[in-house]
Amino acid sequence: MLSAEDNERLTRTGAGTPMGELFRRFWVPVLLAREIPEPDCPPVRVTVLGEQLLAFRDSQNRIGLVEPTCPHRGANLFFGRNEECGIRCAYHGWKFDVSGRCVELPTMARDEGLRSRVGLTAYPAVEWGELIWGYLGPPEHRPELPEMDFALVPPSHRFVSKKLQQCNWAQACEGALDTAHFSFLHTPLSIPEVPPSARGKVLANALRWMVEDPMPVFNVVEHEAGLLLAASRRADGDDLYWRVTQFLMPNHSLAPGSGPGDTYFGQTWVPIDDRSCWVYVYSWNPDRPLTDKESRFIPGVPSVHAEVDEHWVPIRNRSNDYLIDREAQRTTSFTGIVGISEQDAAIQDSQGFIVDRTREHLGPTDLGIVRFRRLVLDASCALERGTEPRAAAAPHAYRVRSGGAVAPSCQTPTEMLTARFGSDTGLVVDADR
Amino acid sequence: MLSAEDNERLTRTGAGTPMGELFRRFWVPVLLAREIPEPDCPPVRVTVLGEQLLAFRDSQNRIGLVEPTCPHRGANLFFGRNEECGIRCAYHGWKFDVSGRCVELPTMARDEGLRSRVGLTAYPAVEWGELIWGYLGPPEHRPELPEMDFALVPPSHRFVSKKLQQCNWAQACEGALDTAHFSFLHTPLSIPEVPPSARGKVLANALRWMVEDPMPVFNVVEHEAGLLLAASRRADGDDLYWRVTQFLMPNHSLAPGSGPGDTYFGQTWVPIDDRSCWVYVYSWNPDRPLTDKESRFIPGVPSVHAEVDEHWVPIRNRSNDYLIDREAQRTTSFTGIVGISEQDAAIQDSQGFIVDRTREHLGPTDLGIVRFRRLVLDASCALERGTEPRAAAAPHAYRVRSGGAVAPSCQTPTEMLTARFGSDTGLVVDADR
Amino acid sequence: MLSAEDNERLTRTGAGTPMGELFRRFWVPVLLAREIPEPDCPPVRVTVLGEQLLAFRDSQNRIGLVEPTCPHRGANLFFGRNEECGIRCAYHGWKFDVSGRCVELPTMARDEGLRSRVGLTAYPAVEWGELIWGYLGPPEHRPELPEMDFALVPPSHRFVSKKLQQCNWAQACEGALDTAHFSFLHTPLSIPEVPPSARGKVLANALRWMVEDPMPVFNVVEHEAGLLLAASRRADGDDLYWRVTQFLMPNHSLAPGSGPGDTYFGQTWVPIDDRSCWVYVYSWNPDRPLTDKESRFIPGVPSVHAEVDEHWVPIRNRSNDYLIDREAQRTTSFTGIVGISEQDAAIQDSQGFIVDRTREHLGPTDLGIVRFRRLVLDASCALERGTEPRAAAAPHAYRVRSGGAVAPSCQTPTEMLTARFGSDTGLVVDADR
Repeated sequence: MLSAEDNERLTRTGAGTPMGELFRRFWVPVLLAREIPEPDCPPVRVTVLGEQLLAFRDSQNRIGLVEPTCPHRGANLFFGRNEECGIRCAYHGWKFDVSGRCVELPTMARDEGLRSRVGLTAYPAVEWGELIWGYLGPPEHRPELPEMDFALVPPSHRFVSKKLQQCNWAQACEGALDTAHFSFLHTPLSIPEVPPSARGKVLANALRWMVEDPMPVFNVVEHEAGLLLAASRRADGDDLYWRVTQFLMPNHSLAPGSGPGDTYFGQTWVPIDDRSCWVYVYSWNPDRPLTDKESRFIPGVPSVHAEVDEHWVPIRNRSNDYLIDREAQRTTSFTGIVGISEQDAAIQDSQGFIVDRTREHLGPTDLGIVRFRRLVLDASCALERGTEPRAAAAPHAYRVRSGGAVAPSCQTPTEMLTARFGSDTGLVVDADR
Repeated sequence: MLSAEDNERLTRTGAGTPMGELFRRFWVPVLLAREIPEPDCPPVRVTVLGEQLLAFRDSQNRIGLVEPTCPHRGANLFFGRNEECGIRCAYHGWKFDVSGRCVELPTMARDEGLRSRVGLTAYPAVEWGELIWGYLGPPEHRPELPEMDFALVPPSHRFVSKKLQQCNWAQACEGALDTAHFSFLHTPLSIPEVPPSARGKVLANALRWMVEDPMPVFNVVEHEAGLLLAASRRADGDDLYWRVTQFLMPNHSLAPGSGPGDTYFGQTWVPIDDRSCWVYVYSWNPDRPLTDKESRFIPGVPSVHAEVDEHWVPIRNRSNDYLIDREAQRTTSFTGIVGISEQDAAIQDSQGFIVDRTREHLGPTDLGIVRFRRLVLDASCALERGTEPRAAAAPHAYRVRSGGAVAPSCQTPTEMLTARFGSDTGLVVDADR
Repeated sequence: MLSAEDNERLTRTGAGTPMGELFRRFWVPVLLAREIPEPDCPPVRVTVLGEQLLAFRDSQNRIGLVEPTCPHRGANLFFGRNEECGIRCAYHGWKFDVSGRCVELPTMARDEGLRSRVGLTAYPAVEWGELIWGYLGPPEHRPELPEMDFALVPPSHRFVSKKLQQCNWAQACEGALDTAHFSFLHTPLSIPEVPPSARGKVLANALRWMVEDPMPVFNVVEHEAGLLLAASRRADGDDLYWRVTQFLMPNHSLAPGSGPGDTYFGQTWVPIDDRSCWVYVYSWNPDRPLTDKESRFIPGVPSVHAEVDEHWVPIRNRSNDYLIDREAQRTTSFTGIVGISEQDAAIQDSQGFIVDRTREHLGPTDLGIVRFRRLVLDASCALERGTEPRAAAAPHAYRVRSGGAVAPSCQTPTEMLTARFGSDTGLVVDADR
């Protein structure tokens, strides 16, 4: 439960808001790289943290992320022409480069003074891990890019996608930090028989343990980039089944289900405005290229990647109740909704566009979200007092992994984490890339 | 004409408004029973009197009408699973019964104290006359169900339906209390030849009398449950053609067109919010089962039941100008709109979402709506002063009928009413059910 | 650049606003005549200058432009029946004539006093140039109709159409007064070969001159009805290419592209509300009937007339980014948008629903819009001080033409205008019609 003030602080990210300023100390994904696939391709509208911007890739592959309004007469540069290292307004031909500088002023060709004075607000933008990242904060505080594992692997080892979520970023992010809900939201109504394959056996056991124990016990480790959330459930015999999630400042989460050698999954929650966000989803495998099935969305196969239309709007969304199938809910699955991603979206959206956290009743299984809130709220308060967030200064600390493990209950969390990840924060210590 | 204050009072029914409080002293229909057709069927969203609720039918056929928000984290129970005498939240499995009591708290299984403290606001709800009725008021003032005639007949004698109306409840209800408008809104441009059948002759004569006399003279009888509105037009010779409408507190009307032995019609106007309402429509015959044609909507046959889509939204609605056919309006009917229900909706919606009653110019033919307003406004004022509405305490007084009659002009209204209904209030005195 | 106050003044045209009052000193088009094509045809909704009205044509071909709300109970007369010199409310049959007078009161037939007191607000409306014009101002200031050239020619010499524009009227009008933009917005990426025909050669040269010189030099002549804007570009040799636009108070523009003998074009910008306007577009030829191709919209042929749906909404509009074809923008045309009208709409709408003129950077090529703003702002200020606009009193002064000319640079603007139009204001001096 939060006070109304803290709920407001947590959820508002427009320019000038405390959380908005915290976000503006980090690089945030603003597009999939393939949305501006090549030099001089069409510009694309971007709304991020409540700001309306225009992104384009110039002839030299540099990326512009600029205010979209031409200073001449206010026409929108979205309709402009992306040509020879700049975007040219379709109204009277004023032209601007990726840094926002006016490079041509054809209606006032002789006025160099004016040309040097008019320009577009522009933010640094780069391509990294098949995403376009922008930095909307003060230039003097611009950090290095976070060295996230998915961005460091070769492209063949990675698949990224994107989906619209129709609620505030924070409650969506909280869903990803809450492994407790797996015991209900994502489960079938009956546990399948243990399949013959070793892999199938692992998955079926994990599912059974989650269904049988809806009260995971959380251990939280704070590290430079964020939080490691390790949650244990009773497994068979004297074992514990651990699910380890990472939260990385200010808006990334790495999923807890992958076993050693498995493909990993993560998500980044980027506010469009306070009532919606883009979710960037990534699968990656440090050890091998992804299989064909792993590197695209396959309709009907439940996944953290969503089935979306050409505008990245999920086929299953608020407007159609996520195509809930009540008969399936009665007989087969807990929700009757197809897809892990879609089940998450349905329940997170259902909390309202901005959930009222003053009316919650939290318990021990909500410890992950409690610590997430404390971390980001504290960081935003500290920033107001002049203390820059330490995560922004620690790009190496983002080289962490998450995932599941089965361990004897006599192991301490630290022992389990070290055995599973090589470090008690999930940090990839032996990364030779 | 009303003052702006009284228009506000009449039309606002949210929690805490004077009229809203009056509505909260009565049972109001919230669903057709067939919308939650069987035990453990899917829950259904209900918005009534500005409150967003969830309705479900449990394993033992009890009906829940509860706030939809899980007290744990605010997820919406609409996505929950209706199972074994309770609805279970899809997020973390908290479960609630029809009384709103939390019956399972799987993420905090050991916390009986919390379980007993968290619960949903829940309202009593029952099935009655193939409708689900809810009572949203203070428990100590919960009345008996109104003994409306349509609810007392066997199911075979009854047909109920539902339609959305895109305006405030009060102006829609006023339309039903205003028999004067039949002289225009519902008439063909030329009176048909008198058909050979006795029934056809009755209908054709009634239509002709209405067209020929657009100034019905109202007699109003106030009774325990509401108002009887008897309006006479000149008929043939020395006869009067009477149309007798009932208004039953706070939002029911019974239609004036049925002759002795005919099937009766009535409507209940239930505010969704202040700009829209659900209209529950019922046909019933005390004396015989309805015919096949009477017990369903038949496209093309004008009726008080509307042609609706699967969400009970009329096919002819605000968005398409009720499919008005201007050529038909020129040559055939006064409106060019198909359907009695649709003609009413068109003209009532056309008054605006909430009609401005400060600009009206009322006359003697508007006496029915004047008395309706006075009755409900006075009752809401009385309730503010602490006087409970007497109609709520008089369920028997709802056993009234309405309808038409032809009587010599020398008969007093009382004589006519007693001859037609057996009592001067329309009360069914010899009901042996 | 305008102050915020002046931008507000320029763009707001509701009743009681300064610019709204100025508009209410002039006749404004409210419909195409063919929208109410014949006596007793269906009434049509009109929203103009923020006022919701109803237009109808009565049995004697008189035109009504009235408030749509029946004074009896507030039903909308749009659903009424247009019959025998009046519109009759569908609810209870009250009937009103084109002057707004109540002519029948069937529910209160004996109340002549009431009948004479209730009436509809009604505005004068006439047909002129295949448009229906309304006058929404004070009766004592009603001017004569403006003697616009297009309205004076025989119907066979004229084609009028209409399109919705989804932005404020003033920025749309400014687009028409800004010939500078032709150098970009409407140009192909490569100048076509000079075609063999004389006419083709003229057009190709004009296009080339516009592309080669994006800095037209403006000469502005103020006249009784508005402004003549003559803008010259360098042509071949020692010649100048002139484009002469007319602005006629308060909201008409005549286009600058037509040569001597060509068909002329003009547009009138009529505010619906402050975020949208109707554009009435007219082509006319004083000297000959229009050809078949000139008297209708032909899909695929760029034109100032837009391709619209049955509600006059352009097929290419805000909701679909004007069907911009980015490949065409890359290879063929500056915008990738089909149609002169559509290119204008796209860029004008893109400025926002109401462009923020406080952030502009204007230069010499914007002189036309600067003078337009000064003229209408001054007139609105003068009207506030009690000085009626002189243009309203000068209907003859609207008999002007616009168009292009090639002239030696040694000619003064006055010499060029006199040679091209017969007068230095574009006035048709020898009109013998």
